[in-house]
Amino acid sequence: MSDLILGAVEDALAEARRKYRNWGRWGPDDALGTLNYIDDTKRASAAALARTGRAFSLAIELTRTGPGSGGSPVHTMLDSSAEAAAGDQGYPHGFGDADDVVFMPLRSGTHWDGLGHVFDNTLAWNGRHRAEVVTAAGDRATGAERQAAAFVSRGVLLDVGRVIGGGSLPDGHAITDDQIRATIRAQGPSARVARGDIVLVRTGQLARCRGMGDWAGYASGPAPGLSFASLAWLHGSEIAAVATDTFAVEVRPPEFGAPCVSPLHQIAIPNIGLFLGEMFDLEPLADDCTADGVYEFLLVAAGLPIAGGVGLPVNPIAIK
Amino acid sequence: MSDLILGAVEDALAEARRKYRNWGRWGPDDALGTLNYIDDTKRASAAALARTGRAFSLAIELTRTGPGSGGSPVHTMLDSSAEAAAGDQGYPHGFGDADDVVFMPLRSGTHWDGLGHVFDNTLAWNGRHRAEVVTAAGDRATGAERQAAAFVSRGVLLDVGRVIGGGSLPDGHAITDDQIRATIRAQGPSARVARGDIVLVRTGQLARCRGMGDWAGYASGPAPGLSFASLAWLHGSEIAAVATDTFAVEVRPPEFGAPCVSPLHQIAIPNIGLFLGEMFDLEPLADDCTADGVYEFLLVAAGLPIAGGVGLPVNPIAIK
Amino acid sequence: MSDLILGAVEDALAEARRKYRNWGRWGPDDALGTLNYIDDTKRASAAALARTGRAFSLAIELTRTGPGSGGSPVHTMLDSSAEAAAGDQGYPHGFGDADDVVFMPLRSGTHWDGLGHVFDNTLAWNGRHRAEVVTAAGDRATGAERQAAAFVSRGVLLDVGRVIGGGSLPDGHAITDDQIRATIRAQGPSARVARGDIVLVRTGQLARCRGMGDWAGYASGPAPGLSFASLAWLHGSEIAAVATDTFAVEVRPPEFGAPCVSPLHQIAIPNIGLFLGEMFDLEPLADDCTADGVYEFLLVAAGLPIAGGVGLPVNPIAIK
Amino acid sequence: MSDLILGAVEDALAEARRKYRNWGRWGPDDALGTLNYIDDTKRASAAALARTGRAFSLAIELTRTGPGSGGSPVHTMLDSSAEAAAGDQGYPHGFGDADDVVFMPLRSGTHWDGLGHVFDNTLAWNGRHRAEVVTAAGDRATGAERQAAAFVSRGVLLDVGRVIGGGSLPDGHAITDDQIRATIRAQGPSARVARGDIVLVRTGQLARCRGMGDWAGYASGPAPGLSFASLAWLHGSEIAAVATDTFAVEVRPPEFGAPCVSPLHQIAIPNIGLFLGEMFDLEPLADDCTADGVYEFLLVAAGLPIAGGVGLPVNPIAIK
Repeated sequence: MSDLILGAVEDALAEARRKYRNWGRWGPDDALGTLNYIDDTKRASAAALARTGRAFSLAIELTRTGPGSGGSPVHTMLDSSAEAAAGDQGYPHGFGDADDVVFMPLRSGTHWDGLGHVFDNTLAWNGRHRAEVVTAAGDRATGAERQAAAFVSRGVLLDVGRVIGGGSLPDGHAITDDQIRATIRAQGPSARVARGDIVLVRTGQLARCRGMGDWAGYASGPAPGLSFASLAWLHGSEIAAVATDTFAVEVRPPEFGAPCVSPLHQIAIPNIGLFLGEMFDLEPLADDCTADGVYEFLLVAAGLPIAGGVGLPVNPIAIK
Repeated sequence: MSDLILGAVEDALAEARRKYRNWGRWGPDDALGTLNYIDDTKRASAAALARTGRAFSLAIELTRTGPGSGGSPVHTMLDSSAEAAAGDQGYPHGFGDADDVVFMPLRSGTHWDGLGHVFDNTLAWNGRHRAEVVTAAGDRATGAERQAAAFVSRGVLLDVGRVIGGGSLPDGHAITDDQIRATIRAQGPSARVARGDIVLVRTGQLARCRGMGDWAGYASGPAPGLSFASLAWLHGSEIAAVATDTFAVEVRPPEFGAPCVSPLHQIAIPNIGLFLGEMFDLEPLADDCTADGVYEFLLVAAGLPIAGGVGLPVNPIAIK
Repeated sequence: MSDLILGAVEDALAEARRKYRNWGRWGPDDALGTLNYIDDTKRASAAALARTGRAFSLAIELTRTGPGSGGSPVHTMLDSSAEAAAGDQGYPHGFGDADDVVFMPLRSGTHWDGLGHVFDNTLAWNGRHRAEVVTAAGDRATGAERQAAAFVSRGVLLDVGRVIGGGSLPDGHAITDDQIRATIRAQGPSARVARGDIVLVRTGQLARCRGMGDWAGYASGPAPGLSFASLAWLHGSEIAAVATDTFAVEVRPPEFGAPCVSPLHQIAIPNIGLFLGEMFDLEPLADDCTADGVYEFLLVAAGLPIAGGVGLPVNPIAIK
Repeated sequence: MSDLILGAVEDALAEARRKYRNWGRWGPDDALGTLNYIDDTKRASAAALARTGRAFSLAIELTRTGPGSGGSPVHTMLDSSAEAAAGDQGYPHGFGDADDVVFMPLRSGTHWDGLGHVFDNTLAWNGRHRAEVVTAAGDRATGAERQAAAFVSRGVLLDVGRVIGGGSLPDGHAITDDQIRATIRAQGPSARVARGDIVLVRTGQLARCRGMGDWAGYASGPAPGLSFASLAWLHGSEIAAVATDTFAVEVRPPEFGAPCVSPLHQIAIPNIGLFLGEMFDLEPLADDCTADGVYEFLLVAAGLPIAGGVGLPVNPIAIK
């Protein structure tokens, strides 16, 4: 748990809104939020970090038995080898094929939360009324199709699990600004975070749960994650996005005594306009970073442009 | 139509199998096919092509009314602003959220065909029996999860539509090896194709159909595309993958008089192990290439790692 | 087309609202609409009509290539014989199984339109504001689960196709009150319609389209169906529901010159509270009725109780 | 648990196959199994049982939070009141509508198991090889569309929960032939079971689990249900189908010491050709039967005719 003294929930939310709200910063029609911090210059310098050509996928496999328990992707075949064998496809010259389909909650695997995913009272990102933003037809203002080319930048891995936790952080551990800064210092110059970076925070929880062969404790129950108090750093550092290897980015249970859902989300998404990435598999990348001491890389993490989507399924690729 | 004299379908297929089959080339357990041509060195040199930081998404928007007519993605909300407004979500402190789901044929938008998508008689890629590869449970041998980090390489745009067609190629136009070579020559040194490249062939058909506001003629009926005879070049050039802005990569109708489904697919996928990309939106990228005369770039086109998938939905990102 | 002289759309709608609106008739909380006309006595006398034990399913098969083109059910297997054969199921003692799933627009096969399916301006059935009724979470007031046991009554087949059309009615034919009455007279006493009946109107279009092996003209384009003017009879006869063998119950195109969607729906559903059934396959039943001259029967047509559903997929059973 | 002495699993299965197998009984092409016991005479006499007109739906509501946990139906809106309000539907004259879709495992609510649902070694119902029956395209031989009009018969409620359990049976309780007979005797003449009947066995577990507000123990873990030894009665009584208010009809865990999946299913479905119904909500019907002492009724339980379906979602209607 965090060692911060936190006041009442409502007070904390009110203070955070006052300090961190970015509404209007990028104009009234904005659909990119903090991705606006990335520009051509940033992308060009990020690409220059890809020196060795080692590439890492940061996505978990999408399966029926994955961590999105109760809401996992269901992949099924429309046509398969048996239909080809039975001659049912009716194709000449030995042609046969297989086709498939997926039914997928958009947050059931590795994904970005869209800007329309969370409301703060009646309002969504940039101060729009939630009813103007998300209806049964999806997100009309900030849907996934509007960030199609935007998730390309310098990535920085902050392995808080190793630096602070000696491998992984225990469930319920709230990552503070100080621990973020300590991790950066411990990892050295390549871990210095700059404007427009996409920051990947490794807690180690994903590897721990996978090792136990059971995702039950991953999708619900206590988990390590960012402290509500880290919003100061998330806002002030002007990063473009932050992702973790956990189900929900922020620490569970929340640090406030009173009942509370996801207070960090409530400030980060509709107020800061910050993109949060969840269930990123950082293990192979983190091993590589530990081995060579280089914690920066080109990150291309473009979600599927599902029109109106408030979740962005993604296969993020880090290239060192 | 192609000006090649093509023999009977069966003869042509037999000859192509004899000449182009890559079975065993990368060992008995291979699940990467021609993606094996890409290595760290290739990726590193590809990343060096990203000099200006301009990034392009090559994916079409996933909507119910997209070109995958009869089989478009259906995106719907599980929870929306109306539920938040009604107080049904039961969250304290003004927290509200929206969640969504997609039902999506895996080839309904921009995608790679998986190696299990097409069989040649009883056999799939690398000579495996189709029944060992694709069942109702999906592709056990070469599913999408096995290429999660593999689609990163130098991309080369061949704008055959502009060079040969003066903008776009007419429906039914079969792109020959000669036309590919002529396009490369016309575009200059940056368009030279090398081993491991991912080649993007623009016909101009996607822009033409979109301009007419109707996708009916895109998903079926005649279309420009690669000639069966281009298999010589596709195989010999040792490219890692090829994608087009059409529904089916190869010319429609097929160039053979006799009934025939997709003869190029039948050789390319199960015999060469070549990845084919379909419905890539190459317009903004092609405009940029025309403007600066540079046809090469870093391409990151990692499909969603749906376990067992024979289609790989993708949001390809080109960075120049 | 109807031979009625119809005034302007708005005038006709206004007059129909004034004459036929049943709001409040069954109390403020009603979720049954005209199904309220059915009571135990009605059901008991209906059951007494089932004398011979001949039973007929009135549902069309749910397939990917059915008439709900562009929105057909997609049925796929989660597990099949191939998985059992491969030993993947891991069951001892020779046990093996198969499991499946369907993705189905609720109006893609034989169905009842729910009371929340259509709004008249801002209002739904019984005068409720549409926003109170249907949100992204479904129909909170009149969803399918509220009529679970209600679709049991005397059924009457009116074979307008045979009586008026000599087999089937041409596309665009609007069925008037007079033609309904003439059909009843021609069919004899068993076809007399009484309060609480569920009326099945056969146009013959479904059989005609199926015979042509193509559903394109069924789901869109001109179709025979009930005239807007038949609302007087639909309301005054106090029937519980009406279903046809067409895609949309009412004649297409609408009888008004001006652009217009489904004016009969707009009055019948939110104003009368009348349930409309679509794509009922009446052929075997109609053949039987023609043969024995008996047009009445027990009808059990209970839709799936999908919570919040505004469409009720159903396999209606007629028993004579 | 059963007080029967049961031998080894394999011996018990072998003996049951020898005694109860109905293969060929209704010809080589049969797709109805024990539903063949129902004929017009049976249906006519069943209809005569519907004397008072009281009708009962035996289906549970289909919701995301229902007992099919991990595999519940997902119902979402394609269009809702918010789209109508926003003017996005573009309809004139105040017309507005709502449309919806469901993604539904076919056994996620009240359903019949299809004849293709279970294999006994390599064989399905009637001795067909499983590979001929169920492929990725569904059940080609005995799919749900082939029983569209067949589930109409006399229904008999056997309230074993009340008679033997004093309300409900404890989890793990195996219902024997003797207990079935004792229940029939206790309930009186209207509960006598005859050829072609559809038997509904109430254990009381569904009500117990619903009362606890948690379905976890319903979908898995111990449950009351039919003993393997009851197969003698299930076969010999020549009933058309049997359904229970439990998740899996048969007792859990199985009565054999050795690991075992669903031995009663393994004999009942592929060998007897018996239809098993699961998750039938028998509470209101059972209360009514207790009140008036009449345990027989007309039962219309026609599943959705999903082509190739091995599960038949159903809203069964009992009429007394």
